[in-house]
Amino acid sequence: MAKFKLDDIDHQILEMLIDNTRVPFTDIAKKLVISAGTVHVRVKKMEEAGIIKGSSLTLDYKKLGYAFIAYVGVFLQKTSQTKFVLERINEIPYVTVAHITTGKFNVFCKIRAKNTEHAKDIIFMIDDIEGVYRTETMISLEESLNDKKRLMHSIFSNM
Amino acid sequence: MAKFKLDDIDHQILEMLIDNTRVPFTDIAKKLVISAGTVHVRVKKMEEAGIIKGSSLTLDYKKLGYAFIAYVGVFLQKTSQTKFVLERINEIPYVTVAHITTGKFNVFCKIRAKNTEHAKDIIFMIDDIEGVYRTETMISLEESLNDKKRLMHSIFSNM
Amino acid sequence: MAKFKLDDIDHQILEMLIDNTRVPFTDIAKKLVISAGTVHVRVKKMEEAGIIKGSSLTLDYKKLGYAFIAYVGVFLQKTSQTKFVLERINEIPYVTVAHITTGKFNVFCKIRAKNTEHAKDIIFMIDDIEGVYRTETMISLEESLNDKKRLMHSIFSNM
Amino acid sequence: MAKFKLDDIDHQILEMLIDNTRVPFTDIAKKLVISAGTVHVRVKKMEEAGIIKGSSLTLDYKKLGYAFIAYVGVFLQKTSQTKFVLERINEIPYVTVAHITTGKFNVFCKIRAKNTEHAKDIIFMIDDIEGVYRTETMISLEESLNDKKRLMHSIFSNM
Amino acid sequence: MAKFKLDDIDHQILEMLIDNTRVPFTDIAKKLVISAGTVHVRVKKMEEAGIIKGSSLTLDYKKLGYAFIAYVGVFLQKTSQTKFVLERINEIPYVTVAHITTGKFNVFCKIRAKNTEHAKDIIFMIDDIEGVYRTETMISLEESLNDKKRLMHSIFSNM
Amino acid sequence: MAKFKLDDIDHQILEMLIDNTRVPFTDIAKKLVISAGTVHVRVKKMEEAGIIKGSSLTLDYKKLGYAFIAYVGVFLQKTSQTKFVLERINEIPYVTVAHITTGKFNVFCKIRAKNTEHAKDIIFMIDDIEGVYRTETMISLEESLNDKKRLMHSIFSNM
Amino acid sequence: MAKFKLDDIDHQILEMLIDNTRVPFTDIAKKLVISAGTVHVRVKKMEEAGIIKGSSLTLDYKKLGYAFIAYVGVFLQKTSQTKFVLERINEIPYVTVAHITTGKFNVFCKIRAKNTEHAKDIIFMIDDIEGVYRTETMISLEESLNDKKRLMHSIFSNM
Amino acid sequence: MAKFKLDDIDHQILEMLIDNTRVPFTDIAKKLVISAGTVHVRVKKMEEAGIIKGSSLTLDYKKLGYAFIAYVGVFLQKTSQTKFVLERINEIPYVTVAHITTGKFNVFCKIRAKNTEHAKDIIFMIDDIEGVYRTETMISLEESLNDKKRLMHSIFSNM
Repeated sequence: MAKFKLDDIDHQILEMLIDNTRVPFTDIAKKLVISAGTVHVRVKKMEEAGIIKGSSLTLDYKKLGYAFIAYVGVFLQKTSQTKFVLERINEIPYVTVAHITTGKFNVFCKIRAKNTEHAKDIIFMIDDIEGVYRTETMISLEESLNDKKRLMHSIFSNM
Repeated sequence: MAKFKLDDIDHQILEMLIDNTRVPFTDIAKKLVISAGTVHVRVKKMEEAGIIKGSSLTLDYKKLGYAFIAYVGVFLQKTSQTKFVLERINEIPYVTVAHITTGKFNVFCKIRAKNTEHAKDIIFMIDDIEGVYRTETMISLEESLNDKKRLMHSIFSNM
Repeated sequence: MAKFKLDDIDHQILEMLIDNTRVPFTDIAKKLVISAGTVHVRVKKMEEAGIIKGSSLTLDYKKLGYAFIAYVGVFLQKTSQTKFVLERINEIPYVTVAHITTGKFNVFCKIRAKNTEHAKDIIFMIDDIEGVYRTETMISLEESLNDKKRLMHSIFSNM
Repeated sequence: MAKFKLDDIDHQILEMLIDNTRVPFTDIAKKLVISAGTVHVRVKKMEEAGIIKGSSLTLDYKKLGYAFIAYVGVFLQKTSQTKFVLERINEIPYVTVAHITTGKFNVFCKIRAKNTEHAKDIIFMIDDIEGVYRTETMISLEESLNDKKRLMHSIFSNM
Repeated sequence: MAKFKLDDIDHQILEMLIDNTRVPFTDIAKKLVISAGTVHVRVKKMEEAGIIKGSSLTLDYKKLGYAFIAYVGVFLQKTSQTKFVLERINEIPYVTVAHITTGKFNVFCKIRAKNTEHAKDIIFMIDDIEGVYRTETMISLEESLNDKKRLMHSIFSNM
Repeated sequence: MAKFKLDDIDHQILEMLIDNTRVPFTDIAKKLVISAGTVHVRVKKMEEAGIIKGSSLTLDYKKLGYAFIAYVGVFLQKTSQTKFVLERINEIPYVTVAHITTGKFNVFCKIRAKNTEHAKDIIFMIDDIEGVYRTETMISLEESLNDKKRLMHSIFSNM
Repeated sequence: MAKFKLDDIDHQILEMLIDNTRVPFTDIAKKLVISAGTVHVRVKKMEEAGIIKGSSLTLDYKKLGYAFIAYVGVFLQKTSQTKFVLERINEIPYVTVAHITTGKFNVFCKIRAKNTEHAKDIIFMIDDIEGVYRTETMISLEESLNDKKRLMHSIFSNM
Repeated sequence: MAKFKLDDIDHQILEMLIDNTRVPFTDIAKKLVISAGTVHVRVKKMEEAGIIKGSSLTLDYKKLGYAFIAYVGVFLQKTSQTKFVLERINEIPYVTVAHITTGKFNVFCKIRAKNTEHAKDIIFMIDDIEGVYRTETMISLEESLNDKKRLMHSIFSNM
């Protein structure tokens, strides 16, 4: 699949961006002893190739009053409704992740809520989507790890 | 919990950063008709208050050869081992998320792997941690949604 | 949430009422070296604030011929029926507790019956409510603990 | 089992006490057109017979900051440990109810906590009791019904 | 419940009949040193009181070509169909036992079949009853115990 | 397996004994127009061939105060303990049936008890057998069918 | 069942064919010191008796790009649809094995796919068959054993 | 993965061998209008590349007295024992397939036995392997499909 070939310079640029997406290109250039223009071209190329899809802010949801995380397994009436249900789920902003899965659930979601009562409202929103047969919820008592940086570094050091 | 008070300017700055973490502060300043210095001060304050914890790059894992996602439920022998097991799990870069959960699992993880065989190796690494009694794996057939931006916008528009 | 501020006198009054709801206010007054009128005012205030919602008699159900306790998990056809089903459940006096829950059940009830046969009748009443899809019953072999006083004392000693 | 015979007067006294445990005996006497002494004697007799075991205050736990309710199923290593484990559970004030049950759990508890984090601590306390093999938690999203008065009235109107 | 009072003579008669339903009354009479008429009267009385409901032959089903035993758990669409479904089940001679049960099944049956294929036919007969939603089968690999005599003796020695 | 060949006379004799094990041989002889000696010889032969293994009394357990029926699934620590555990189970008279089964249980038992409390004691006896890891109990709310006669008649009419 | 009697020569011929279905009959003849004609006749006879049903090539599916194996449990709406559903399943070439089973599934299939995405398509094909209510998938992380030769040799050495 | 390139001639040769592994190379040659030598060379090459791994006889197990098929899910004590347990499983000829799987089982096997009793013996053999914690068995009531030819044809027609 990974047909686009990343060379060592690309890897080093990515390593720096992974640690801080806001690092100025001039800093990257200085560190790698290349021109800022080269950094710009490389990043542009990786964006065009679709390897870099964007960046996201890491907020402290607890401080923002959204401390409640739950996983919701969704059973559908028919899998032919999968696409439709996923579009409806996509309209609920409190669902941050959704997967089509093997095992007992058809769709598996992660939600963030303010508290138990808010979680109930979100679960009911999912339950009320046409084609959803039943849901089962598992509540997070503590988010102990949420970090893709270790994976990203590992990918590039393994390449 | 959310004792730190964000005002409307903070919200608008956050909204722009959520969409693109690399947007220059001068662009934000121009858009909001404030000085770049103000933007800088505000962002700094939100970082110091711990509301902005950082930023992360969004890569296309499929293109990088890591198309395989699975959720792994972990049963512990004793919950007193939770902290120790989470530290070991933290050493496996392919585990990107880990939660202490209610329901049948003690710990619930998300992993990214190259393929079935690689997934097996990662699951075995988790299984071999001292104190882990058993694991149960659910495989993602499609990541249909992975987007925290909708949530972030929703949080600020609800405040 | 607990915006109403209870002071030390309130706590001591509550502690005495928790142990015996029928304790005369004059006894409380004597013990705390305050006037009976003060006790009266304080209790009234706590009732108006909704902190004290009432009191309930503790009967020996075994002696009254109601020795059979069971927990009944209820699966609904659609969660939109939750409110309607709970109203119907509320009409069955043998259901003493009902919760909307996470996990596999939509609603989780506690029932008290005379014996196995009576329990069957009650379970069938729940099963026959429109919108109830299925129930699953877990029978109590012994009620080993049913005591909120320890919790109440703990709440006030932690405040 | 219910060998102690309650007559109609007893029933009516109980009915009034069920509605309000603090109702003065003189009020009961007036309502039933009997002497206050008779009420006193009757209540005493029912207390001595163990039918009336006491009374308990109904507090608004939400207002007191204890809004989180969960059911915890406990698996034991050996049922011979049941008595020992129940004694340890009895030392945790946040566990308000505990049953020995049929089905997959050995012991089934109800807990009240301040929030998710507090619930985690309580669950870990139970998990750490010697002889407890594993626990499974089901969280209440709403306590829709908690009322024994309907049952009590029903018992006496059926007698 | 057991209002009919059995005396010691009754117990001894039952003990002998439990061991061998075909034992002649004269043998019982001789052993207990009473008249055969008394035995006759006592047995008659126990039959009329409904304590003795009949007798059944114990055949070797293996030798008769019916070696396959399975337990079939039945899920109903609505419990209001229980009575109707049990009547249909009653028409299948290969179902020897059926219970209304707590837990995940509504009805729980024991079947005897010639072999796997025959068992499949019987399970399909049950599955095809109107109102039956699904069945789950557990197969016996060995009938290690099937003996009510130990229970009967125990009942009478405990009386 | 059924190598012993039963002829039509045998079938008819069995049919009569199935309905009433105590029917006198002379009655059978008269009905089938054969000699009582022939009946005697045939029954003897079927007993010697092991086809007729005995007979059992059908008592009304409810009237005898044993109205509580439960199924208990037993999990073993190792299947090598199966034989030992079954011998211990065999010593508990309240266990009337025990099977080695496929599915989640190693051994599956049927018990008869006086009431909930007695059932708890019996389940604890099983739980305390060395080698028993855990049990799961399913309670009968009604024994709707317990009749092997239909099967027996069906076997002989199919032969 | 095995009424057709295989003699020692048949066994030895089968043993050689099991190891290599393409072994020339002349080689078998030489090894067993019989004529090639005899081998031919014997094989023909075993084919006509239906004992030898054919032969199949063992390909390396991994090398052919079909490395993904999964087991799919199928729940039907009604077992009366079993035959129809199996005919539809039979039209999907990626399903290599299908069984009617006891336990929670009605039908249990084995599928071979190119990768996760292809597996999803196949599972959706099964899910979309009329009469299929739900499916549950279990993914193979490694096919550690797939060998009927050991069984075949064992059958003939036990005969 | 499939680096070895098969051309159209290879496909057509494979198609003929799939249908009948014993088809003479001269027949293939005639059909495809190529020389028998070419067929020989091509098959040799595909064998050396490991694409053709061998061939196997398709026997009628029912006629050979092995009509009983079951799937056995194996739970291990530790996954580090997986390799050891699979080696022991490999010594039991009645296990024809074994997979390391996701979901609740660690290893998932297919067995063929003579009957229920033989199946019990095989399951006990697996249960008694050191490191095996528990097994769960699902019995096949009918092998409705067992055919890899459809898949093979599909693979080559899709290439």
